[in-house]
Amino acid sequence: MRAVDIIRKKRDREALSAAEIHHFVSNYTKELIPDYQASALLMAFFLNGATVDETVALTNAMMQSGATMDWSDLPGPKVDKHSTGGVGDKTSFILAPLAAAAGIYVPMISGRGLGHTGGTLDKLESIPGFNVNLSLPQFRTMLKEARCGLIGQTKDIAPADKKLYALRDVTATVESYPLISASIMSKKLAEGIDALVLDVKTGVGAFMKTLEDSKRLARTMIDIGKGMGKSVVGLITDMNQPLGNWVGNSLEIFESLETLKGRGPKDLTEVSVELAAHMLVLGKISRTLDEARQKVHELIKSGAGLEAFRKVIQMQGGNPKVVEDYKLLPAASKQFRFHSISSGFVAGIHAEKIGIAAMLMGAGRERVDSVIDHSVGLQLHKKIGDAVNAGEALCTMYYNDEGRLASALELLNSAYLISAAPVKAPPLIYEVLD
Amino acid sequence: MRAVDIIRKKRDREALSAAEIHHFVSNYTKELIPDYQASALLMAFFLNGATVDETVALTNAMMQSGATMDWSDLPGPKVDKHSTGGVGDKTSFILAPLAAAAGIYVPMISGRGLGHTGGTLDKLESIPGFNVNLSLPQFRTMLKEARCGLIGQTKDIAPADKKLYALRDVTATVESYPLISASIMSKKLAEGIDALVLDVKTGVGAFMKTLEDSKRLARTMIDIGKGMGKSVVGLITDMNQPLGNWVGNSLEIFESLETLKGRGPKDLTEVSVELAAHMLVLGKISRTLDEARQKVHELIKSGAGLEAFRKVIQMQGGNPKVVEDYKLLPAASKQFRFHSISSGFVAGIHAEKIGIAAMLMGAGRERVDSVIDHSVGLQLHKKIGDAVNAGEALCTMYYNDEGRLASALELLNSAYLISAAPVKAPPLIYEVLD
Repeated sequence: MRAVDIIRKKRDREALSAAEIHHFVSNYTKELIPDYQASALLMAFFLNGATVDETVALTNAMMQSGATMDWSDLPGPKVDKHSTGGVGDKTSFILAPLAAAAGIYVPMISGRGLGHTGGTLDKLESIPGFNVNLSLPQFRTMLKEARCGLIGQTKDIAPADKKLYALRDVTATVESYPLISASIMSKKLAEGIDALVLDVKTGVGAFMKTLEDSKRLARTMIDIGKGMGKSVVGLITDMNQPLGNWVGNSLEIFESLETLKGRGPKDLTEVSVELAAHMLVLGKISRTLDEARQKVHELIKSGAGLEAFRKVIQMQGGNPKVVEDYKLLPAASKQFRFHSISSGFVAGIHAEKIGIAAMLMGAGRERVDSVIDHSVGLQLHKKIGDAVNAGEALCTMYYNDEGRLASALELLNSAYLISAAPVKAPPLIYEVLD
Repeated sequence: MRAVDIIRKKRDREALSAAEIHHFVSNYTKELIPDYQASALLMAFFLNGATVDETVALTNAMMQSGATMDWSDLPGPKVDKHSTGGVGDKTSFILAPLAAAAGIYVPMISGRGLGHTGGTLDKLESIPGFNVNLSLPQFRTMLKEARCGLIGQTKDIAPADKKLYALRDVTATVESYPLISASIMSKKLAEGIDALVLDVKTGVGAFMKTLEDSKRLARTMIDIGKGMGKSVVGLITDMNQPLGNWVGNSLEIFESLETLKGRGPKDLTEVSVELAAHMLVLGKISRTLDEARQKVHELIKSGAGLEAFRKVIQMQGGNPKVVEDYKLLPAASKQFRFHSISSGFVAGIHAEKIGIAAMLMGAGRERVDSVIDHSVGLQLHKKIGDAVNAGEALCTMYYNDEGRLASALELLNSAYLISAAPVKAPPLIYEVLD
């Protein structure tokens, strides 16, 4: 089997066999196939697309390039959630403890933020002492004792993906449904889960801006998961405006804790409950979605979800007192209230611009090596559909540096749209695919 | 200008500007752009095609990556011919001296044989002493004094092409009209010629097997030449059977000398005269093709063409006596006559199989590092359309090694097709494109 013949076959639109894909990925990872052959194959995949079988084989080969986890000694369903990323997206901190409290093992491996979207690991690190860099034995202890662990990608997981992703980045082969999906799924399925709930965001603040594109990405990932024998559902959820009312690292931890206490905003609560409920159904903890929703609401009411999160924080080295005492979370030194200059109804809160504004204040990374300020961010006082009077605050910005505030304000000015006529809030969940 | 943005643009089917293509090729040649980016761009070119402007820019950038020749001090037209390669294709040794004798400067840079086609340089080297590795100043002296020089590619000419070709070979991006055409034309136009006659072979023994493909290749090369301000015509000529009656290095030099003496076979003479005549018209030595044909025939009759070749041989270090004394050319030690087992008419002489048979006897290269036996080859006694009796010789094989003869014979058996009904010879020239 020669690499050039595999490239030629893909170039000529013939479907590659699982053996051919495995040969290529495995030898590329071992550096027996050079980058210049891999980039030619990636461009052929980009331009010619891939069948479901090819995409499954690619995912499998990338997953098999590194360590895969095995929790078969743990008695119960292993289910995770993956989000394609958005602004104010903090559902992981709510649904993972809730699912764990319901009896599901949640071995969640997450990433850091880049650009306008925040990262799960960055938000967790705003909790004093919280350690996301656990070894695999430590992760196993977390799962065993807390049924949940929240850690970062290790270099043992899907090394082929890391190598291929770096190559795609410099060869203009990133934006391909099969390649994006295989990249995500190879890492998620290496977690050794039985089932996965996908939260595919759609809208101006999402990676996929249109419903059609979001559905196509969800479909590709679901097909991969099913092709690898897993139960998968995909929820297409709104990312035209930020989710919830708070954006920023410690601010989102605060809002998650409030939501686990039953005091969260309606949109964040509903999306988190829906995602958690699907995890319970896939994990066969509940028979129906309605039953699952009820169970999740009970776990919020009883405080069992909050207690599960407290346990994760404590076991991962964080200060568990933050759960009650928010003053222990890093806080910005200054506030600025951003006012509406007209009366009417909020018609748009451009999620991507809000995300970039938060990033510019220090909440996110402009480059991979940017340093994060865990304390800064913003609170939205109005969401789409809300009435607003001229002079009323649209949001409050929590900041430490006047210069950074200024560049964020410039963006905010163009992020809001006020309409004279009443506006309906967008749906929270557009579709559920399985 | 970033390489990744250029790749993305081509990937998205937008036409690249000349500046973008020049930037990419120039920096790739200087090793400032890595192979893995170049191979991604090549695959995008392969799958998305290229406009005429892009192909011209690519050719220009590859040509400008190295030395280009300038003969503006020489008083007269500079015209060359390029053939896409075939079996028994020896027109260069006939038309180059004839064109030179007519007053045209012919700075011909050729290649070596690989696979079933022979190479101009290999054939020349069958002349004892002939040196194809001239320095550029020596080449200039040839042009000045003999109006013709026959040399090999130097590393100064289009280094980008050498580097890109090696990369295409291992990334399955060879068979692309724009890339093939740019590769050929970048080297040819670096010769500093005013005009070029293209001999695009078509048929089983050619690189392009169908008339349609051959025309498409010719069209792409003509467009490039015109886009770079040169006069170009393309003749689509037959390569279903070998050209002329002899195949093999010294054997083809012998047949070329015979043709320059007016004793060549009809097909070889006609194709050589036609190509030479087009050179004379493009070089404005003759006003019409008919006038040019007549002039070429006169130069054969007068012996001026032969004399021009003798001068080239002498000046490039070869023994000029070979022109009269063929015994000075290397000769194989043994002969084998291959007979027809049936009576009828020759309906097919599969040019590619004849070429491979000659290669297996030692006349060509199976791999780049194979050693050539200049003496071996074969003589065709019958061409397509000829009547043949059972037991009559179809060809004679000139060989040195029984083992090699045996493997060649195996192929020959399937190369010939004898038909009971009369057969018409294929046309020699299918079309002339300009």
